[in-house]
Order: sequence, then structure tokens, then C-alpha cells
Amino acid sequence: MRLKEEITNLAKGARQAARHLVNLSSTVKNKVIKEMAEALLAEKKSILDANAKDLRQGRMQRLSSAFIDRLTLTEKRIREMSDSLFEIAKLDDPVGELIKEWKTKSGLCINKVRTPIGVIAIIYESRPNVTSDCIGLCFKAGNSVILRGGSESLNSNLAIFRVLKEVLSKNGVPENAVNMVSVSDRRAVDILLKLNTYIDLVMPRGGEGLIRRVTAVSRIPVIKHYKGICHVYVDEWADLNMAERICFNAKVQRPGVCNAMESMLVHKDVAARFLPGMLKKFLEAGVQIRGCGITLKIGRGAKGIVKATKKDYFTEYLDLILSVRVVDNIEEAIEHINYYGSHHSDTIVTDDEENAAKFLREVDSACVYVNASTRFTDGYQFGLGAEIGISTDKLHARGPMALEELTTYKYQIYGNGQIRV
Amino acid sequence: MRLKEEITNLAKGARQAARHLVNLSSTVKNKVIKEMAEALLAEKKSILDANAKDLRQGRMQRLSSAFIDRLTLTEKRIREMSDSLFEIAKLDDPVGELIKEWKTKSGLCINKVRTPIGVIAIIYESRPNVTSDCIGLCFKAGNSVILRGGSESLNSNLAIFRVLKEVLSKNGVPENAVNMVSVSDRRAVDILLKLNTYIDLVMPRGGEGLIRRVTAVSRIPVIKHYKGICHVYVDEWADLNMAERICFNAKVQRPGVCNAMESMLVHKDVAARFLPGMLKKFLEAGVQIRGCGITLKIGRGAKGIVKATKKDYFTEYLDLILSVRVVDNIEEAIEHINYYGSHHSDTIVTDDEENAAKFLREVDSACVYVNASTRFTDGYQFGLGAEIGISTDKLHARGPMALEELTTYKYQIYGNGQIRV
Repeated sequence: MRLKEEITNLAKGARQAARHLVNLSSTVKNKVIKEMAEALLAEKKSILDANAKDLRQGRMQRLSSAFIDRLTLTEKRIREMSDSLFEIAKLDDPVGELIKEWKTKSGLCINKVRTPIGVIAIIYESRPNVTSDCIGLCFKAGNSVILRGGSESLNSNLAIFRVLKEVLSKNGVPENAVNMVSVSDRRAVDILLKLNTYIDLVMPRGGEGLIRRVTAVSRIPVIKHYKGICHVYVDEWADLNMAERICFNAKVQRPGVCNAMESMLVHKDVAARFLPGMLKKFLEAGVQIRGCGITLKIGRGAKGIVKATKKDYFTEYLDLILSVRVVDNIEEAIEHINYYGSHHSDTIVTDDEENAAKFLREVDSACVYVNASTRFTDGYQFGLGAEIGISTDKLHARGPMALEELTTYKYQIYGNGQIRV
Repeated sequence: MRLKEEITNLAKGARQAARHLVNLSSTVKNKVIKEMAEALLAEKKSILDANAKDLRQGRMQRLSSAFIDRLTLTEKRIREMSDSLFEIAKLDDPVGELIKEWKTKSGLCINKVRTPIGVIAIIYESRPNVTSDCIGLCFKAGNSVILRGGSESLNSNLAIFRVLKEVLSKNGVPENAVNMVSVSDRRAVDILLKLNTYIDLVMPRGGEGLIRRVTAVSRIPVIKHYKGICHVYVDEWADLNMAERICFNAKVQRPGVCNAMESMLVHKDVAARFLPGMLKKFLEAGVQIRGCGITLKIGRGAKGIVKATKKDYFTEYLDLILSVRVVDNIEEAIEHINYYGSHHSDTIVTDDEENAAKFLREVDSACVYVNASTRFTDGYQFGLGAEIGISTDKLHARGPMALEELTTYKYQIYGNGQIRV
């Protein structure tokens, strides 16, 4: 009961603060964000001390080295967090943008205007840099934010949070614009996710398990991506050299991220020419292949090629593993992608305009590419200047999400006494 | 188990059909919708017969006269349904619209393109005309639709549904683009609302009870409005004659709809001048007043004015009842609206530009008006040509929803071999 009251009060406070944020000018918001960036640098010692505490506990808990790596802050990483806030300060303010305007038959002037969403909750795993990124982006878009990070990074998160929150109060901005749920009790999240009166949007950031838990419990709208099962389809009309470069890049350049390729589809008419060289290159780079029957035949029992099961096509490896399937035609490729994929990012390599257009139209994914690596699905690569996540949902936001996706709109309507007849 | 399989298969079929709908041209879609409009007229006898069956059963169940009225089809109402389909055929097709395009540093051309959402489920109460409206709008926006109407109108709904579905198959469009859940078992809806693999969006249309039930159960994103508690605030700088016209219209012209005024707020400095005449006019029109202390004093114990409780300010009367409160200033008015309101439609009557701007910015509602009746919140009145609902949510769609709100977007990205470095 005590916990419920505490979390509810925190969310109420965030809602109250959001009412004030709609009145902040871009100038004030940018000044605050720049001061946040400076404060991170000025306070780096206290942040590193807090992080050292988390790291000590993490090693005692025998967390994996990948986990420890994500958890670790260094002077360089703090500088990057600070730089990222300076970048956010430079971005255009989406709030107040006039999206559309028109006059109705009755003489009303309707303005469709971009506004903050209100209160956004972000539930994330143990990456302390997410703390400052989310505070900067949500604040710039005029939203209150409620953060709940992984318990393993609690000291680091709290240290960053306190530094940034102090900048708010120094500038006369309501402190409740940024909030952190720091109680260790896991029920806190369940309570938070029921508070749809005070919270408008939840964004879970982390592994599929976390995201599924949040989605199952939440009464608040959730924007998310469960996983990234991205495909490259090498069409019968592909430039095979280009296809090799794109496929290699999409798989190998950074296999642990959501926009890396997990499945390669090859048209049957080019399989015999394309696959031998491609498979060799993958095997040399240490990529394990899970292939269909034809792929196995072409691979001639090379070490590192095993038979793919149906489950493979549903799997996000996030590792140097790749499923490979030879398809009869573009229709089969599209059907495969829509059925096994995760609606994230998919590429066709082709020189045929009609096939390109068909792929772009029929593949039901957030980002569909012709002749480029899937690895470009990213807010910075897109030129959005920032990224708060990638959505494979279809409502509100799809694909890379930046400032604009942290806003909604309202209709502001000007009359001169109109009544309905 | 049998029921679950049946509903799941229906949803799978809808998803399959949606894959085809993305390839339909506007010309084909419009031809189909016009033929649907004609078919309704040609088949009016069978539709009226089915409706007569529903009406007979409804009277035996002693449904209220308002209920029977909504359930009743006449030749005129069928003509209106048909006209509405002809109108939908004339509207611009939102699918394929190029929302934005730009080139990235890496040379990728990114097109943000409007696309159908996919599969939309609509759960509604016993208004048979909703059946044809929803089929027309969803089909025009390239979506498959799954309808579940109130059981009292099942025969009417099925008759309309069959007529429209036949037009699809005649035109070679997959029949599964339109679907109706006609089993009477109420668990069918619960099953449907869990099928987030096949269904992208749920729109409940009906009373608050229905909408809350759907929202509580659904694993699929829901767009909705629970209720419309709309306000008119008469500012200290209001033209009081205009204020009287607007308030009267917002309350009396059609009290049973969601955009009617439920609560009137009056600045204390104009209350003594404004309220006596206004209250008299309301009382003469049969409006019951639930007033604050000052309102009661000004009303001098007139019959029809009683004391308002806090609960009144939270109530959507949908009737000739109005709560009235005198406020100290515009801040108190805005706070009242954000606290008690439903974020639907709210008006300020004022000649002061600054107060108007403050109201438009700070009132957190889908539609905020200056000097006009709240009754204009409506897709047709807005000039959108149609309406499939009104959203008081903030994600995806806010305010009146028409064709555009039944779409999403994808990024189509053109490269010439780009890889990530």
C-alpha cells in the first residue's frame, strides 16, 4: 500500500510538471539541456564513483563480461553522454510545429499543432547512458519522464539523474519533470504500468523478455520492438558483387544489434553463382551457417554449415550465425519475410525496378531497402539527430524514433461565434 | 477450443487478405465501394427483412425506445448508408502518399510513405449503419476489417455484411478483407482481443462500459474515447452575447452526443452579468442546472437549479443537465478542465488574444476552441469527409478520425550499394 502510494504520487507529480512544460520556450529548454551536458562533465567524479560501486557489486554477482561492459562508465563514455545532450540541444524543437491548417465551410480556422505527449515512462536494462539520453530527449519534446533502470546500474543511474535534476531546479523548471523509480521492489513496475491516468506512454528498452513482460502487464500504450529479424533477399536480377558486400556488412559489421541480418534469402537462379563465394566469405569470418537443402548442397559439407530448422528462421541470433534459404521467386521471399520476420528492416538487392517496387510495397516492415545494408536503420543514420528507440509497431511511430515521435498533436480551432445548426 | 480455432482462422484470413490489399489501385477500390453503395440499394428488401427480425426480438426483450430507434433501419437510413459509401469513394486515397523524402549523408534516399495499417477490428453496439461505414472506410484505406456488432442487431449486420462481401468476390478481391464474428458466444471477443499477431488495431465504438471492457482485456493497441466531458469557459473578456449563443448551442442542440457541453465555467467578474440571463434561457429549454455556491446565489433558488457535487463535474450527462461553476480566473478554469474533463473538446469565449493562446496551449484536449461551439468536433464538420470515431488518446490519432488515421507509414529506402562503416 505504501509502495503504491509512493509510485502514484511520483506519477501525479510528473503529470503536474508536464502541465508546465508546455509553456517552456525552445530557448529555455535548450539552455537547460546544455547546462545538463556541462553538469555531467563537471560531476564526472561522483558519477564514476557511483559506477564503481555498481561494478563491484556486479562482479560479485558474477555478471557476464558483456553485461559488465554495458554497465561500465569511463571518462570517455561520460563525455559521449554529454556530447549527445549538446546535440539534442541543437536539434529543432518539434513542439508548436503547425502540421496543417485549413478553413472549414462554417468558417472555422483549424490548426493541427504538434504538442508534447505528456508523461512518458521508460523501463530499461542496465545501460547508464540511457538515463541521460532519455532525460534529454523527453525534456526537449516537452514531456515529463519517469525512468526505471536495471537494478544492477542503480547507483550510476541515480548519480546521473541527480546531476541532471539539479539543473532543472536551478533554472526554475519543476523538478518533477524528471523522475526515477529507485526502490528495488519489483512490484514497483507493475504498479507504474497501471497508472494510465497519469502516464501516456511506456517505452521498454532491452531484451525481448523485458519487453514482453511490460506489454503483458501494461494498461498504458506501449511502443516497442520485440526483436530484429532482418533479411536480405538477393534477387535474380541482383548485382552479385553488390549483394555480397551488402550481405557481408549486414551480418558481420556488428552482429549483436537489432538491425543486423539474421536470414539471407537467395533466388534459385543465382544461387549456384552467388552462394559458393558468399558462404566461403562468411565461413572465413567465423559465421556459422544454418542452410536449407540447396544451401547445404552448394556448401558441399563445409564445416560450419548445418541444416536449418523452421525455428532458425524465427530466431534473432544477435551473433555470428546466419540462416540461409534459397527461394523460387520474389513472391516466396516476400512471404517468408512477412511470416518469419519481425517487421523491422529488410533489403532486396536487385537491378529490376518492378521487383524493387513490389518488395517495397509488399514487405510489411518499418524499413524496406533496395540495394543497401539493413544496418542503416538507426535515428542517427537516418539523419534524425537522435534515437530513443526503434518501433516495429504500426501505431503512432514506426521505425527509428526521435524527437518528433515523442510528440502528439492537438487541433486548435479559431471561430468568431460559430454554432452548429 | 473450437471457438478459439474458428476466431483465430478468421483473423489469419484477414491478415492474408491484407497482404493483397496493398496492391489494389485507388481506381479498383473506388469501383468496389461504389458497387457496394449500389448493392445496398438493390438489396434493401432483404436488409429490411433481416432488420424486422431484430426489431421483433428487441421488442420482445423490451429494449428501450432509444435502443430500438438506433436499431431501426428504414428505406431512408439505407439510402443514407449508401450515400455515405458513395462519399467514401470520392475521398482522396491516403495510401501511397509521400509524407516526406530526404537524402542522407550516406546517399540513401529515404521516402516516408503512407501505408495501410493491416487488420483492424471494430467492436460496436447495435447500430447497423456502423457495419457499412466501417467496411467502406477500412477498405478504402487498404485494411482488412473484422466486425463484431451488438447481438441485438446481428441479423441486420449479417444482411448488410453479406451484400457488401459479395461485391468483393465479384471484383476478384479476397473475401477475407471483410469479416464478421457472428457467433453469439461472448468469449469470442476475449479471444479476438488476444490475437495481436494477426490484428493491428482495435476500435471499440459504444458506451463507456464497452470501451473499458475492451481496453482491459486487449493485447492489441486500442484507440478510443471513453466519454466526452466538454467545457465552455466564459472568460472575463468574453463577448457575453456570443457566449450565450455558444453555450446554449453546445448544451441544447443535441445533448446526447459526446461533443455536447456538460460543464460551463464562468469568470467571477462576469458571472453577475452573464449568469441570470443564461440560466433563465437554459431553464426555459428544460435544462437542469447543477451549480456551485455562487451559481445558486445568482439563481436565487429558481426551480431546476440544485447544488453541484464534485461527482457532477466528472459526469457525462448526455442529457439536458449541466454543471455550472464560477471560477476566479483562467488558471482555475484550465485546471478544472484538465482535472475533471475527458480531453475531448473545450472552448474559451474571449476577446483577449493572450487568454485565448494560453487556453489553447494549456488545455490538454484533442480539440480546443476559441469562440465556437464544442459541437463542431466531428469528421464531417472538420471537412475530413468521413468519421470512424473520435480519439481522446494521444498516440497515433487524436480527435476526429477519418481515412488518414486508418493508415500508418513505412520507410522505403533507395540505395546503390551502401554499407555501414
